[in-house]
Amino acid sequence: MRLEWERVLAKRVAAFRACTRTDFSQLPCPPGTIHFTGGAPPVECLPAETISDALVRAWHAEPTALWYDETDGYEGLRVAIADRMRQRGARVDPGQVLITQGAQQAIDLVARLLLEPGDRVVVEGPTYFGALQVFEPYDVAIEAVPLDEAGVVLDRLEDAFRREPRPKLFYTVPTFQNPAGVTLSAERRSAVVQLAARYGVPIVEDDPYGELWYEAPPPPPLRAYWEEVLFIGTFSKTLAPGLRLGWLVAPPRLMKPLIDAKEAADIQSDRLLQRAVAAVVTSPWYEAHLRAARAEYAERCRLLADALSHELGELARWSLPGGGFFLWVTLTGEVDAATLLPRCAEAGVTYVPGSEFYPEHRPSPSLRLGFTTLGRDELLRGAERLGRALRRLLTEARPT
Amino acid sequence: MRLEWERVLAKRVAAFRACTRTDFSQLPCPPGTIHFTGGAPPVECLPAETISDALVRAWHAEPTALWYDETDGYEGLRVAIADRMRQRGARVDPGQVLITQGAQQAIDLVARLLLEPGDRVVVEGPTYFGALQVFEPYDVAIEAVPLDEAGVVLDRLEDAFRREPRPKLFYTVPTFQNPAGVTLSAERRSAVVQLAARYGVPIVEDDPYGELWYEAPPPPPLRAYWEEVLFIGTFSKTLAPGLRLGWLVAPPRLMKPLIDAKEAADIQSDRLLQRAVAAVVTSPWYEAHLRAARAEYAERCRLLADALSHELGELARWSLPGGGFFLWVTLTGEVDAATLLPRCAEAGVTYVPGSEFYPEHRPSPSLRLGFTTLGRDELLRGAERLGRALRRLLTEARPT
Repeated sequence: MRLEWERVLAKRVAAFRACTRTDFSQLPCPPGTIHFTGGAPPVECLPAETISDALVRAWHAEPTALWYDETDGYEGLRVAIADRMRQRGARVDPGQVLITQGAQQAIDLVARLLLEPGDRVVVEGPTYFGALQVFEPYDVAIEAVPLDEAGVVLDRLEDAFRREPRPKLFYTVPTFQNPAGVTLSAERRSAVVQLAARYGVPIVEDDPYGELWYEAPPPPPLRAYWEEVLFIGTFSKTLAPGLRLGWLVAPPRLMKPLIDAKEAADIQSDRLLQRAVAAVVTSPWYEAHLRAARAEYAERCRLLADALSHELGELARWSLPGGGFFLWVTLTGEVDAATLLPRCAEAGVTYVPGSEFYPEHRPSPSLRLGFTTLGRDELLRGAERLGRALRRLLTEARPT
Repeated sequence: MRLEWERVLAKRVAAFRACTRTDFSQLPCPPGTIHFTGGAPPVECLPAETISDALVRAWHAEPTALWYDETDGYEGLRVAIADRMRQRGARVDPGQVLITQGAQQAIDLVARLLLEPGDRVVVEGPTYFGALQVFEPYDVAIEAVPLDEAGVVLDRLEDAFRREPRPKLFYTVPTFQNPAGVTLSAERRSAVVQLAARYGVPIVEDDPYGELWYEAPPPPPLRAYWEEVLFIGTFSKTLAPGLRLGWLVAPPRLMKPLIDAKEAADIQSDRLLQRAVAAVVTSPWYEAHLRAARAEYAERCRLLADALSHELGELARWSLPGGGFFLWVTLTGEVDAATLLPRCAEAGVTYVPGSEFYPEHRPSPSLRLGFTTLGRDELLRGAERLGRALRRLLTEARPT
């Protein structure tokens, strides 16, 4: 006997979807295709031994951590996170840190805390697709405010904040933005928090890449400018995504409901892993690891950008990010990068089309190139293939 | 500048709460208090070495599992789970298994899938408090159907199913129920799924204890009677709660939205731990571990029950569970176990009051005694203290 699931499913299920609309497994990729789709540390930089050793030590030191406890997270890790954030200029008490299953769960918990049907949510355009994936099932109106070279455009942001009903949150990746690579300038950081305070709009600052700068550290996080900012961090990019260890910093008023929501969601995060990661990130090894990662990513970014200049020339433009994982390439002319993707895949190269990063998935002439997971040879060959494919496709597309 | 959080918080936040209303840390417990509050394997039965060794092996075999992938879970673990469920009589395809952060996340994902404001939810009275904690913020009407010695009372269940609007789900712990310890008989299992099919009510079967029987295995899970049943399992009770590894078995129609919801919630569960646990639960060690655990829990249960018979006599009644972690003790007379708890705590013994297990937290003369975390001496001393304290309190409470 069958149950009529269509009758019993909640309406929000219609908005459930995978993080990207593109099903990359369905692209016609020949063997050896070079994927610029990654947004993770490279395999050769995963500190597997270091974390594994720390985990074994934690396991032997405290096997009772296999029990229930510490819904808010292991105190030693919360202290280590608060310390690192203070070094970046944000005064954070460890009691304001909630350990989460990666940054993704932090976004999910914030949405539970704030969103109701009909609410307005402001994001950057483009923005991280995983945040859209969380917000959409809440039946909210998501509005994207454009970015320029110095981050979100202030007068457009104020327009969005001013309108009634006031937005329930502004979700932003101000530092080495995903996907655009831009960083909100220090002056604009002040201005953004002043706008948010004036109009009473909570800021959700997602900061996966802030520690991964190339030449110089970025300005302090928005949380350093305003204690009401909800700050989301993660070890997915600095250590490994598979750890699923992130955190949320919130004002004291919100900690009790957030901890209750975390308990209802999954009771607690892995306590032994938290102990292992606390040991790792407070060791001198971690600073050396970050230094090496920064240099490596800077080099890969430069290499790809140089190759693209050569291959694409006048067909595209981009700006060099100061850190992070992505080059955001915008093709000249009226073209949708999503429609070009299958042809590029046939030519042995893929990317994430820009449309994935907008709430309405509107056509976009941009594409996101993730360079951290590719070795130097792959970057050069990938740029060559991409240049050749795009040059051909864009020439075909234009009237002769 | 402060933000007016009361103005921006979602209405559902008013229903966020910790899993129990009792704040056990605030009870006036003297040193050496014996806590019957636990619902976990005992420290001495945590297979820390076994899991740690398996984890190190998994780590060395496949460090790339530290990357993003497998939102639905590691195939090897899903196959192992499907195999075990087939041994219990439920034909499950590994493609119908979603790995979750413990059973708690499975309950949370099911709620996201099904619940909308104003919906009706049917539970057992008493029921697991962590399920109530998930359902309440959805602004639903939660109705408890009573249990007797053979599980949920059928005519009361049919009354609840029949009324319009039809319930969105029936959440049940049919086997070694938490907290009542009762097991739904085989006959009633048939009847329950027939009722659910007739009235179109999804069944959510939570089964944390099904493998932990004392003398004989329980009847097959409800999922064995009906393929539309949503089945929730966990390794929290058979291995260790700190692993946060559970699973959800769902009909094929629901797998895509559930996997999307899991991705939005936290992207994936720990992939290395899934590999380690897959190796552990398919090894002969696991069967031996379960055999030893069953014998140990059976012995602790018997010991506590015998001691309580001696100490409480006519003051209380309970029935012996066939497995699981709990003895559900009901005091005679009109008394609320919650109001007696602080006085028992003063006397050096605690329990979870029955009111915690009802949707409306109504006064209850019952109390849940968890015996698995206590050694034999503690069980005897705890029973003695509890008997003495309750005898005094109940005598005081009655008119002379």
